[in-house]
Amino acid sequence: MKIIVLGGDGFCGWPTALHLSNQDHEIVIVDNLSRRKIDVELGVSSLTPIVPLPQRLAAWKEITGRDIRFVNLDVGKDYDRLLALLHQVKPDAIVHFAEQRAAPYSMKSSWHKRYTVDNNINATNCLLAAIVESGQDIHVVHLGTMGVYGYGTTGAPIPEGYLTVHVTTGEGKLEPREILHPTSPGSIYHMTKVMDQTLFAYYNKNDRLRVTDLHQGIVWGTNTSETKRDERLVNRFDYDGDYGTVLNRFLMQAAIGHPLTVHGTGGQTRAFIHIRDTARCVELAATNPPEKGERVRIFNQMTETHRVADLAQMISKMAGVPVSHLDNPRNEAVENELQVHNDCLLDLGLKPTKLESGLMDEVIDVAKRYADRCDRSKIPATSRWVQKPSA
Amino acid sequence: MKIIVLGGDGFCGWPTALHLSNQDHEIVIVDNLSRRKIDVELGVSSLTPIVPLPQRLAAWKEITGRDIRFVNLDVGKDYDRLLALLHQVKPDAIVHFAEQRAAPYSMKSSWHKRYTVDNNINATNCLLAAIVESGQDIHVVHLGTMGVYGYGTTGAPIPEGYLTVHVTTGEGKLEPREILHPTSPGSIYHMTKVMDQTLFAYYNKNDRLRVTDLHQGIVWGTNTSETKRDERLVNRFDYDGDYGTVLNRFLMQAAIGHPLTVHGTGGQTRAFIHIRDTARCVELAATNPPEKGERVRIFNQMTETHRVADLAQMISKMAGVPVSHLDNPRNEAVENELQVHNDCLLDLGLKPTKLESGLMDEVIDVAKRYADRCDRSKIPATSRWVQKPSA
Repeated sequence: MKIIVLGGDGFCGWPTALHLSNQDHEIVIVDNLSRRKIDVELGVSSLTPIVPLPQRLAAWKEITGRDIRFVNLDVGKDYDRLLALLHQVKPDAIVHFAEQRAAPYSMKSSWHKRYTVDNNINATNCLLAAIVESGQDIHVVHLGTMGVYGYGTTGAPIPEGYLTVHVTTGEGKLEPREILHPTSPGSIYHMTKVMDQTLFAYYNKNDRLRVTDLHQGIVWGTNTSETKRDERLVNRFDYDGDYGTVLNRFLMQAAIGHPLTVHGTGGQTRAFIHIRDTARCVELAATNPPEKGERVRIFNQMTETHRVADLAQMISKMAGVPVSHLDNPRNEAVENELQVHNDCLLDLGLKPTKLESGLMDEVIDVAKRYADRCDRSKIPATSRWVQKPSA
Repeated sequence: MKIIVLGGDGFCGWPTALHLSNQDHEIVIVDNLSRRKIDVELGVSSLTPIVPLPQRLAAWKEITGRDIRFVNLDVGKDYDRLLALLHQVKPDAIVHFAEQRAAPYSMKSSWHKRYTVDNNINATNCLLAAIVESGQDIHVVHLGTMGVYGYGTTGAPIPEGYLTVHVTTGEGKLEPREILHPTSPGSIYHMTKVMDQTLFAYYNKNDRLRVTDLHQGIVWGTNTSETKRDERLVNRFDYDGDYGTVLNRFLMQAAIGHPLTVHGTGGQTRAFIHIRDTARCVELAATNPPEKGERVRIFNQMTETHRVADLAQMISKMAGVPVSHLDNPRNEAVENELQVHNDCLLDLGLKPTKLESGLMDEVIDVAKRYADRCDRSKIPATSRWVQKPSA
């Protein structure tokens, strides 16, 4: 298949692009390098020493003989170039990672809220409008988030996108209806993914676009079999308070002997997935498109759930570092239960990488190996969900 | 009260601003004059001869002695000036009409889709972010649309925003939950109002913003008691295929002896409200804010429902012009039933202006009076919801 990967230089996009290339798909990466520029803004670096994208691609070519093309454009701003690219490449699928993906970053200030909404919504809308204008039948595979669901609204397991509810009809009877699961996003970032769902549902209904939306859990881990093949292919690893995901932050902290920073009680249960499985899931989704006219297909892209405090305890024991409880900057329930259905991807053949088997490797292979690159001052989370009252 | 009216030069915004001013509220109009610029783009004019906004305001001052201030800025683009204005004015309420409001215009081309999404979503998000950053407790009154609801999903009357459904709990019991009514927007324009709902729900939950969202039916009529006081105060009247609302188009067509253009069977039932009641409803909403911490308050701002074909028949008989059935450019169900609850505004004291009592006045006072200003070539609707397959 011909596949364009939007955001193909990022944490999920890069290993996914390599995985797809390695499966003999013809890959074009589109990226505006915004994630690297945000590193500059925040004064942080990936723990792993990532090289510039052209060098990454040259290394991949050298090692595998495979070409991956790179086009530097902003999906939400450079519409005419995006449309021209669709006409030129005629892709079978477009994988859409071209969104600002950190909840804390989206909450840093009013500017960051506005950047995240403007960037994410215009990227998705421009992509969908361009596909319609191109007249092509291109399958969109989008990275959504488990955070669109109102966690714990019923106590029942979270279904894959659609929920059957009973509604009262005009005659006063209760009848079942399948609706998009009610949402309750926990940050501006998560809110943009809820708005993306509205865009997908609309273009799917009006223009019969084929869309798969992958509601992903929190990603952990760093490398895949492809990114391990050469140091120049290494994936980024974020440990800072904005972009570091909770488990990777614990691993980094363990590696340098820093107390594990748990916000609040750590009573929140979250869904997790290894980066290796992210790449596999995207390939499964891309190679199994919905039928033309089928509603938006929604998969829960996660493999296990854990309470944050339990993860901290597990790593604390493994690594002999204490757990430190800090104020929770988020505006969220202190505790929640979480059960999630993920049959769709398992049925397509996903074999999950479980935490218990991969955690130690990750600490040794990545966190300890690059520990001397860590800037401890970047570990604390500084974004707050609600403004402090002014003095 | 001090009230800022965003979009206060437009079809709903202008009469609302005057009505609020006449009720002794202190009014600031914010507008980027985009609606007048779209007239230039489309080569159309309001049937009524509207004068530039500064002349409108000078006339209002001359007649009533009341000042209305005008600030020309783009709510979605000129964030710093918007924030400075909030600090300066310290409004009690902001009425938000600053969105592109025509469904056919939003479907004209890929550019129009992207303009509508970018303009409407950034306007709403910038407004909400600015209120949070200002630290002020400002009530937002937003013009939504009845079009957010999936019309006719249950046969039961459409509630005001929230629907009680029964969900299956973890123990397998059916329990009631109140959710935001499922949506099914019929155009890019309507989709932006669905996305606005997500923005309001989020900022209301995270920042406790006070928001009233008015899901308005199709507006008809032209003038209010305030805009009738001087010809320089006259409200705009659109009859073209993009901005003309269905009933005003019929009135115009009747006045010039043009067949009434019904798209498809006209079997769609729609909700209607007179422009006079729009202005009254906004004042009722603004002066009855939700409590701090209360969820987003949603009112259905409509006063009656009619089948489009029945309206055409009624006016056809009144005016002696035939009905002409054309292809429906929209992608929608041919027929639908529609019952709507609108108790909230009636309970606050709204006395509706009904179609039967106001229709003839409208034909005589406006459509016939200005008939010589009509450009017949602008009557057909040219926007199509789905691209024609290329040859």
